[in-house]
Amino acid sequence: MGKLNVTAEPGKHEIIMTRDFDAPRELVFRAYTDPTLVPRWWGPGSLTTTVDQMDVRQGGIWRYVQRDPAGNEFAFRGVYHSIISPERVVTTIEFEGLPGHIGLQTLILEDLDGKTRVTDLGVFQSVADRDGMIASGMEGGANESWDRFEEILKTL
Amino acid sequence: MGKLNVTAEPGKHEIIMTRDFDAPRELVFRAYTDPTLVPRWWGPGSLTTTVDQMDVRQGGIWRYVQRDPAGNEFAFRGVYHSIISPERVVTTIEFEGLPGHIGLQTLILEDLDGKTRVTDLGVFQSVADRDGMIASGMEGGANESWDRFEEILKTL
Repeated sequence: MGKLNVTAEPGKHEIIMTRDFDAPRELVFRAYTDPTLVPRWWGPGSLTTTVDQMDVRQGGIWRYVQRDPAGNEFAFRGVYHSIISPERVVTTIEFEGLPGHIGLQTLILEDLDGKTRVTDLGVFQSVADRDGMIASGMEGGANESWDRFEEILKTL
Repeated sequence: MGKLNVTAEPGKHEIIMTRDFDAPRELVFRAYTDPTLVPRWWGPGSLTTTVDQMDVRQGGIWRYVQRDPAGNEFAFRGVYHSIISPERVVTTIEFEGLPGHIGLQTLILEDLDGKTRVTDLGVFQSVADRDGMIASGMEGGANESWDRFEEILKTL
């Protein structure tokens, strides 16, 4: 388990990330949608993450605030568009520092004989936005997030 | 004015539509975001459209219901993600008959010396979703919508 695969073909709007977890799908889904766990896995460990809003239902808003050791804040927000337990979550995501640039994220959970394959499908308004996300170091951040998420799964 | 250009490159996630209107940008923006006008232009004239919700602010929900002469209903919904008057509106769109398939729409209004170029940039979760939208006859529907919209602009 634990290997993140990232696909981002040149000239496309999407980033596809997949990773397998040694935990049943229901557990992965529950952990992913639990506001009390988000501060323990979302984003890199060097930042503290606070859940400001997380209303996991169609039309509900989520908003997380990250703080670095110097006290700088980085807020992210989005709207839940579809939640099908334990299979699928569709949300939008926007970095408040770059307002109006919206990403559309589809998280797909597949059952692999009691283990779970997570596919994180991100689609952006433009190829430039997609490329900007990659250039921002997203892959490293995602790797660290999913590593932390995996550690949490082991404790549940 | 009045010619709709549609671009949908093979294998891409997006559909780009542009059309010029002989009206100032402020007027186009106002007409586009006016719930009382939506029933007069949104969708083909053979269907009646009712605005169930239209809360034009970040995080606000819109929901339109179309009815055909036989009484069949087709509902569409989405969330406003960014509204910058008179330049830009970003929303999501979902056909309730195909739940969980979300489109991300960016409407850009450019000033052309008192006239307005409208660019409607649609991005879908997958190329298959994008192709399905084209196959559904979207271009003809969009043409008719924008024709009706142009007629309304002349009366404002």
